[in-house]
Amino acid sequence: MASISTLFTKTPNPSPSLCLPRTSKSHFTPAFRLPIPLHSKKRTHQKLRVSSALIEPDGGKLVELFVEESLRDVKKREALRMPRIKLSRIDLEWVHVLSEGWASPLRGFMRESEFLQTLHFNSLRLDDGSFVNMSVPIVLAIDDADKHQIGDSTKVALVDSKDNTIAILSSIEIYKHHKEERIARTWGTTAPGLPYVDQAIAKSGNWLIGGDLEVVEPVKYNDGLDRFRLSPAELREEFTRRNADAVFAFQLRNPVHNGHALLMTDTRRRLLEMGYKNPVLLLHPLGGYTKADDVPLSWRMKQHEKVLEDGVLDPETTVVSIFPSPMHYAGPTEVQWHAKARINAGANFYIVGRDPAGMGHPVEKRDLYDADHGKKVLSMAPGLERLNILPSRYRNYCSSYETQNCFPI
Amino acid sequence: MASISTLFTKTPNPSPSLCLPRTSKSHFTPAFRLPIPLHSKKRTHQKLRVSSALIEPDGGKLVELFVEESLRDVKKREALRMPRIKLSRIDLEWVHVLSEGWASPLRGFMRESEFLQTLHFNSLRLDDGSFVNMSVPIVLAIDDADKHQIGDSTKVALVDSKDNTIAILSSIEIYKHHKEERIARTWGTTAPGLPYVDQAIAKSGNWLIGGDLEVVEPVKYNDGLDRFRLSPAELREEFTRRNADAVFAFQLRNPVHNGHALLMTDTRRRLLEMGYKNPVLLLHPLGGYTKADDVPLSWRMKQHEKVLEDGVLDPETTVVSIFPSPMHYAGPTEVQWHAKARINAGANFYIVGRDPAGMGHPVEKRDLYDADHGKKVLSMAPGLERLNILPSRYRNYCSSYETQNCFPI
Repeated sequence: MASISTLFTKTPNPSPSLCLPRTSKSHFTPAFRLPIPLHSKKRTHQKLRVSSALIEPDGGKLVELFVEESLRDVKKREALRMPRIKLSRIDLEWVHVLSEGWASPLRGFMRESEFLQTLHFNSLRLDDGSFVNMSVPIVLAIDDADKHQIGDSTKVALVDSKDNTIAILSSIEIYKHHKEERIARTWGTTAPGLPYVDQAIAKSGNWLIGGDLEVVEPVKYNDGLDRFRLSPAELREEFTRRNADAVFAFQLRNPVHNGHALLMTDTRRRLLEMGYKNPVLLLHPLGGYTKADDVPLSWRMKQHEKVLEDGVLDPETTVVSIFPSPMHYAGPTEVQWHAKARINAGANFYIVGRDPAGMGHPVEKRDLYDADHGKKVLSMAPGLERLNILPSRYRNYCSSYETQNCFPI
Repeated sequence: MASISTLFTKTPNPSPSLCLPRTSKSHFTPAFRLPIPLHSKKRTHQKLRVSSALIEPDGGKLVELFVEESLRDVKKREALRMPRIKLSRIDLEWVHVLSEGWASPLRGFMRESEFLQTLHFNSLRLDDGSFVNMSVPIVLAIDDADKHQIGDSTKVALVDSKDNTIAILSSIEIYKHHKEERIARTWGTTAPGLPYVDQAIAKSGNWLIGGDLEVVEPVKYNDGLDRFRLSPAELREEFTRRNADAVFAFQLRNPVHNGHALLMTDTRRRLLEMGYKNPVLLLHPLGGYTKADDVPLSWRMKQHEKVLEDGVLDPETTVVSIFPSPMHYAGPTEVQWHAKARINAGANFYIVGRDPAGMGHPVEKRDLYDADHGKKVLSMAPGLERLNILPSRYRNYCSSYETQNCFPI
C-alpha cells in the first residue's frame, strides 16, 4: 500500500474543492456556505479569539439533560412510582444522543409539533423565529398497552432491558405513530428492507411519546470504547484546550483509508492557507446502530487508532471520538442530522462525500439516492447556514489510488 | 333545507375559532398566526390604507410571465426553430399557474435546486436569506427521446396537443426524475392508486426540465368559465377596487353547502369585530385536474353562482373566482400550496378545514392523512408567517345541521 507521503507526491491535483460548485442557473440561489475565514477581526487576541471561534450550539446554549448527581437517587426513587417504558437498544442510543445535547436545542423525545416540523421542513422554528436544522425524527414509540398503563400520568420512567431506571420523561404528549408517512417522508421510499425501519419502526408501537427528558443514569456501553465517547461539551473543551480556531468534522461509518486520510490532511492544509492558525480535525466515526453488513465499531476504532499511531494523521491536530447516534441510512435527509450534530460539538466545517448516508435500494438494482443530492441538500438546508460545507473529491482519490480499498464515506 | 338565517339563530356557538388552539407543551413554539388586526396605524387614511393593506406577494413582486402582445408573433416564429415539448393537460394547467404568478416568485418550471428544496424543506430560500413557501413540485417531465431531441439547445418550445406554441422555456436545466422519491416525499406514501401520480407521474418521462418560462399564448379553456379565471393581478385589482382591508380565502374542491356558507359569513363578522372595515371573501374553487369521483367544476360553479344569487353570501363582499391549479390530494403538503398561492392573490386570511386536500388511503381502509395535520402543518410552515390561519369548525356545523349534505372541504 502506498504511504500517504507517496500519495501526496503522486497527486496531480491534491486540493479538495473547498466550496460547492454553483449549480447551473437557478431561480433562487441556495445559500451555499463559502469557507471564508470567520471572526477575522478577533484574531489579534489569541485567547479571546480561540474561545469565541468555536461555533455556537444550535439555539445558543448546549443542552445537557443529566440530573445533578446528588439528586439522582431521589429521582430514581420517584421514578419507581411512575409508569415504566422499556427502552430498546436504539431507544437507549437516542437517550444518549439527547442527553448530551447533540440535538440541541431539543430537550427530549419529540412532541408532535417537532415531529411534524421535522418530517415536513427538516427544521424547527425557535421562539425568536429563527430555524435550527432537524431532519431525522427523534421519537419514542410505545404500544397500546403502554399507553393504557400511562393513563393520565404526566410522567413516565424510561428503563433499560434489566429494568434499571435510565431517565424520566415529563410533561408528556402521546400522539399517533403514522409509520408509513414517517418512513416515506424520511427515506423517500417505503420499499421493504430499509435497515432502520426493520429494526426500529416496523414492529414498534402505534403511538409516539414526547416530553422533557431528565437522565438519571448516563448511558454507558462497557465495551472498552466508552473513553472515546466524548460529549459535545467535552469535545468543545478539548478544542478550546488545543486552541483550535477551526474545527472540521469528518463523519464515517466505514473504515478509514488512505483516500480519506489524504483528504483530511489536505483539508487542514487548505484551512491553514485560508488564514486559520490551528484547524483541528474531529474524526468522528458513527457508533450507534449500523446494519449487519457494515464493519463493526470495535474494528473501525482499532483501525482509527492505528492511523494515528502510524502518523498518517497527526494526533496533535486530530481528535478521534465516537458519535453515538444510530444510523438511518436516509441519505440527503440524514446527512443534515450528521452535520447539525457536529455544530453542537463545535465543528464549523463539515466534510461531505458522495452519497452520504446512502445505501443500495432495498428492492431495485440501483443506489437509493442520487449520489450528488446529499451535498446539494446539505448546502441548502435551513439551519445549517453557519456551517461551511466541504465537498470531498473522494471519488477521484478512490479511483486513482485505492480502488480495492474503496468504501463509501 | 334550513335557510341560513335559521341556521344562525339555531347555532349554539356560531363563532368559528379564529386562531389555532395551542397544542400542549412543546419544546418549540411554532409560529401560530394570531389574527390580530394588521396595519392598524395606517387606518386613518382610507385610500392609502386600502392599497397598502393587501398582503405583498411572495418575493415582493407578483410574477407575470406573458410575452408582451406585440412581440408574441416574433416569439412564436422563433419557437418554431426550437426543440418541441408536448404538454399534457396537467402540464398546461401548471403553465397557466406559473404564468399568472400564483407560484411567485417562481419564474418557470423548477430546476433541480428548487425541486430539492421543495421536496426536503417545502420552501425556497431567496437571495436575501428569507424563505417563501413552496411545498408542491411544479415540474415538467420529459422522456429520453425528448432529451435526445433537445441535445445542446438552451431553449425549448412548449406546445399543446395541436402543436400550437404555448410558451418558451429558456436557460433550461435537465435532471433526473426520481419518481419514487418525489412521490414518497410529497404524499408520505407510495401506495398505488394516488390519482395525481397515476395521471401525471407514473407514465411520465425519466427526466425533468426546468427553466425560465415565457408564455406566448395565454392558456384558455373555452368552457364558458374563463370569465371566472381571474389572475392574482386581476384579483388584487378587484380587492383594491372594493376597498378591501382584509381578504379571507376559502379553497374548496367540492360543492359549497350551508355549513360552508355559515362559516364564511361568520368569519366576515369576526373580522369586522376585530376592527376591519371591509373584509372581502375570496371564494375560490379549485379548477384544475381533480379525480374522477369529485364533482365537476361546471356543476360546482353553477352552485356557487346560485349561492350568490340567493343572497346566502353577499355579492358585494364576495369574489368568486377559479383557482387554476391541478389537485395533488397531498394533504398537509398540498394545503401549504393552496395557502401560499392565495397570498399571491392578495389574501391575508386563509380558512382551513379538517383534512384539507386529503382523501382515503388508496389501499388501506383509513384516511390517508391525520385530519388535524393539515392545519397544524400550515400553522408551522416556513414562508407562511404572514398569513393568518383560520381553522374552521366545519365538523360541528356539518354534524349538527346537514349531515346528509356533508362534503369534505
